[in-house]
Amino acid sequence: MKNKLTIIKVGGKIVEETDSLRRLLDDFASVEGYKLLVHGGGRSATRLAERLGIESRIVSGRRITDEQTLEVVTMVYGGLVNKNIVAGLQARGVNALGLTGADMDVIRSVKRPVKEVDYGYVGDMEKVNISILADLIEKDIVPVLAPLTHDGEGKMLNTNADTIAGEAAKALSAIFDVTLVYCFEKKGVLSDENDDNSVILRINRDIFAALVNEGVVQGGMIPKLENSFAALDAGVTQVIITSTAAIGQASGTIIQK
Amino acid sequence: MKNKLTIIKVGGKIVEETDSLRRLLDDFASVEGYKLLVHGGGRSATRLAERLGIESRIVSGRRITDEQTLEVVTMVYGGLVNKNIVAGLQARGVNALGLTGADMDVIRSVKRPVKEVDYGYVGDMEKVNISILADLIEKDIVPVLAPLTHDGEGKMLNTNADTIAGEAAKALSAIFDVTLVYCFEKKGVLSDENDDNSVILRINRDIFAALVNEGVVQGGMIPKLENSFAALDAGVTQVIITSTAAIGQASGTIIQK
Repeated sequence: MKNKLTIIKVGGKIVEETDSLRRLLDDFASVEGYKLLVHGGGRSATRLAERLGIESRIVSGRRITDEQTLEVVTMVYGGLVNKNIVAGLQARGVNALGLTGADMDVIRSVKRPVKEVDYGYVGDMEKVNISILADLIEKDIVPVLAPLTHDGEGKMLNTNADTIAGEAAKALSAIFDVTLVYCFEKKGVLSDENDDNSVILRINRDIFAALVNEGVVQGGMIPKLENSFAALDAGVTQVIITSTAAIGQASGTIIQK
Repeated sequence: MKNKLTIIKVGGKIVEETDSLRRLLDDFASVEGYKLLVHGGGRSATRLAERLGIESRIVSGRRITDEQTLEVVTMVYGGLVNKNIVAGLQARGVNALGLTGADMDVIRSVKRPVKEVDYGYVGDMEKVNISILADLIEKDIVPVLAPLTHDGEGKMLNTNADTIAGEAAKALSAIFDVTLVYCFEKKGVLSDENDDNSVILRINRDIFAALVNEGVVQGGMIPKLENSFAALDAGVTQVIITSTAAIGQASGTIIQK
């Protein structure tokens, strides 16, 4: 039997405000068993860029990352946000270790090829170093992954946090029984977008197809769910979409094959 | 017999310019055996603070670290400088891991008590987590320490890089045969400050006393050497003061009991 591992992805907004960060850290500290946190930080990056007079350009949800912007995200994601989380977890008795993909070569990427858009120093994930991560996790060290990877040639690359969480979950499911939790503003996948309590408790492929057909699930939730099924196909046990306030609780939408 | 460990401390200037950083990484990568790097980053911190309209106040070589300045140094030391070094070392086949004191609780500090000066969020080192560091080092992972520690209560603390190098060297000498290398602009301790080639090859306590008496060694070099002897007393095998260009070469001033 594989040991359970919970991989939790939290967005930038949650980790960037003192109160919500404190709650998140309390909730995350209370999650039992092996765990791993992946965080964003986009709002703080935009704010710092603004203060430095650097324009933030976001195309299809991805930040165009020129040399200056790469410096900003390396500072904000790898420094400010990551280290505040790590220090906060240590204060709660969680032996956190902040990592970018460059550290111990845990995640290698390639710079995204230029097609219609030149995203600059944005990384498409290539390889997760499972053995190093598993070794840490089995020593009760809790990796805290910043949305940064490297190309193996000395360059850091800005990398989407959802993708890191998904790919890490897939790779680590070779060793662990992985639950992947995506935290966002809503309590889960809603059957009525105007009713925050209309959480659909369980979705499988058939239900998903029906929900899309009926127009209940639409927009940005479709790729989120498609990615979740891809993770399940790759060995992840379950994916949970929930609100940050519900980390560690049995709530939200559970997605299973 | 203990295994050899080389701990190298490099100042901010060297790691902040592309050319000198590249040379440093090449030289550091060529150092054989177990190794650990401690870096500064003060100039970049001052530059970023300036761009953000935050005044840098340095008293007796220490940066007064208010809340805003703590954010700056956490971004610059823990993010920008540290991750660029780590990515650069990975590109050279060195399995580097960037760490602040908060990561895996490797260095715990206390906020410096307010006496004549309120240094703000500056940490005085309390404890080095020898077993975690030794465990990494023995797996051929190369720790890259940023000059940041934590208080165990969720707060990062700005901490002098020379002190981190010295204290880490002392603590790790329980397990390793430690050589501590301080890199700076000059080739070593000079007998004639106007002659860069007048390096004193070897200094022990008697020679040190004589050099101070004769006025050959003065100013900032006196506390540097006193700290070196304190490190030797605490178990460090030798301390070398040399230029960055000479890392990995048999040169500079060797300080031994």
